Amino acid sequence: MDLVTLNDIRDAAERIRDAVVRTPLLPCPWADPGRPLWAKPESLQPIGAFKLRGAHNAIARLDERTRRRGVVAYSSGNHAQAVAYSARHFGVPAHIVMPDVTPQVKIDRTRECGAEVVLVPIAERESAADELVADRGAVLVPPFDHQDVIAGQGTAGLEIIADLPDVDVVLIPVSGGGLASGIGTAIKALSPDVQVIGVEPELAADTRDGLAAGARVDWPVERRSRTIADGLRSQPSELTFAHLSRVLDGVVTVGEREIRSAMAALASRARLVAEPSGAVALAAYLDHAGELPAGRTAAVISGGNVDPTLMVEMLTEHAAPARG
Amino acid sequence: MDLVTLNDIRDAAERIRDAVVRTPLLPCPWADPGRPLWAKPESLQPIGAFKLRGAHNAIARLDERTRRRGVVAYSSGNHAQAVAYSARHFGVPAHIVMPDVTPQVKIDRTRECGAEVVLVPIAERESAADELVADRGAVLVPPFDHQDVIAGQGTAGLEIIADLPDVDVVLIPVSGGGLASGIGTAIKALSPDVQVIGVEPELAADTRDGLAAGARVDWPVERRSRTIADGLRSQPSELTFAHLSRVLDGVVTVGEREIRSAMAALASRARLVAEPSGAVALAAYLDHAGELPAGRTAAVISGGNVDPTLMVEMLTEHAAPARG
Repeated sequence: MDLVTLNDIRDAAERIRDAVVRTPLLPCPWADPGRPLWAKPESLQPIGAFKLRGAHNAIARLDERTRRRGVVAYSSGNHAQAVAYSARHFGVPAHIVMPDVTPQVKIDRTRECGAEVVLVPIAERESAADELVADRGAVLVPPFDHQDVIAGQGTAGLEIIADLPDVDVVLIPVSGGGLASGIGTAIKALSPDVQVIGVEPELAADTRDGLAAGARVDWPVERRSRTIADGLRSQPSELTFAHLSRVLDGVVTVGEREIRSAMAALASRARLVAEPSGAVALAAYLDHAGELPAGRTAAVISGGNVDPTLMVEMLTEHAAPARG
Repeated sequence: MDLVTLNDIRDAAERIRDAVVRTPLLPCPWADPGRPLWAKPESLQPIGAFKLRGAHNAIARLDERTRRRGVVAYSSGNHAQAVAYSARHFGVPAHIVMPDVTPQVKIDRTRECGAEVVLVPIAERESAADELVADRGAVLVPPFDHQDVIAGQGTAGLEIIADLPDVDVVLIPVSGGGLASGIGTAIKALSPDVQVIGVEPELAADTRDGLAAGARVDWPVERRSRTIADGLRSQPSELTFAHLSRVLDGVVTVGEREIRSAMAALASRARLVAEPSGAVALAAYLDHAGELPAGRTAAVISGGNVDPTLMVEMLTEHAAPARG
């Protein structure tokens, strides 16, 4: 199995420059001074999540004739908007297959990016996507199980090392594992001593179990779906698991209350709107210090697409009473 | 009267590099495609507002012996935290004079930055600060009425032009006028055709009136205090008014409902927590298109220090019902 290399990630960085925001590393002076903290706010990408890095790299790598036939994705989340946004950048059609139970706001956001949204019963997602690929010669862009996608996500790792060369610890949310595979590969290649730590919800900790067992462990989807972190309910593929096995120094799991509280802290202290999945790295930093290596820490805030009503709930629960 | 020059601003950019975040310009794909929009999120500075640029430049310019005697500011807002943060960066004492009615959270935030907070009756602010200056030989850092402060704020303008050389319109909140003076000076020097527009609350529109009259106009403080935008209740000094007269192509005023609605839009669409003052440029873009020049527009989001309870109010009023 070919793993992504530092050169793949450097090439990706060149390729995505025009469409992707070079996010800053934000110092967090309110954090524990003994473990200085920086936030990497991927929530500030134009579609609100890191997914644009990988999707855009994959689409940019297609030869132009192929790309003109269009791209396809099945996703109701951030990957859908990433593929739609990138396709519009190139002026090519995007067909996004979504379950017919998808909330209207997610359908609207994806259509706003110029994509054609195809609603199907949830069980038919993959077959509907395959049909679009077969009928139109369009190219399927997978959310994580692809070298080009992993290399694109890894560009965030290059930026972390460029901005904070003496970082000691990097905390990265893990779901399908594309983000942690890419960032981990970049960081281990450039600074092998940096500790790269994956973060999962306790309620979807299949990667923690898999790495402990030395092979992927399957958690049934109903079990993974219990977490509020709806972007962290996927599981690694063989390809991402192979990367994670090489690059992760550990996995920390966080509780649901910790995730909610980290969302409130990001809003009130870092002035960032994060979705639950985007807040898990901060939750690990705040509530699991004892399980983490010491030193200068970067936490990847992976996305910010959260329903305003949920944001209100978090702020009401956690921030307002404590801070007056 | 010596006005700030492009060279002053370039020197400031070198000087503040270590302490200030080089904020990105964020594309807003959800905006009107006929007037593409970018946000300049100064809310992401470590103290949550642009004020760090000016305060840090002023403190960095002091000779070291003077600086070691410490710095003084009177402010209960973002300038207080900016001076405190910068003083800690240099390892020198900061004395911040605040009215004794200041909300506890603002006192705490300033103390967190390592400053000594001196609480006095509101009428004694200036005299208490003068006393600290006289007793300790400490240096007063004014919030806007100083060349070094204006030059520091102007560094955000250099960044806008560097990131978007073909910008057509820049929208900047105006209060004491340091930010708009600095950014306007940088932009007019680099790209004289860019339209630089100040934005004020309708309820604190003294600069609009002053520019129309050709001289500063005084609005009584009770009148200015009606706006929710608590960072925009100051008035220009002779120095900033002289800059504003040269660099502003116009002033647009926004209503209170428009400010609240822009805060909600920033949270739900740009994933940014903005304070009311930080949202006025977006309010002008969204609700006053007819008064604005056409073209590629950058809106400066000047700060993000908002009480979580107010944020909850905005999101509940404007975002949740509309977007479901």
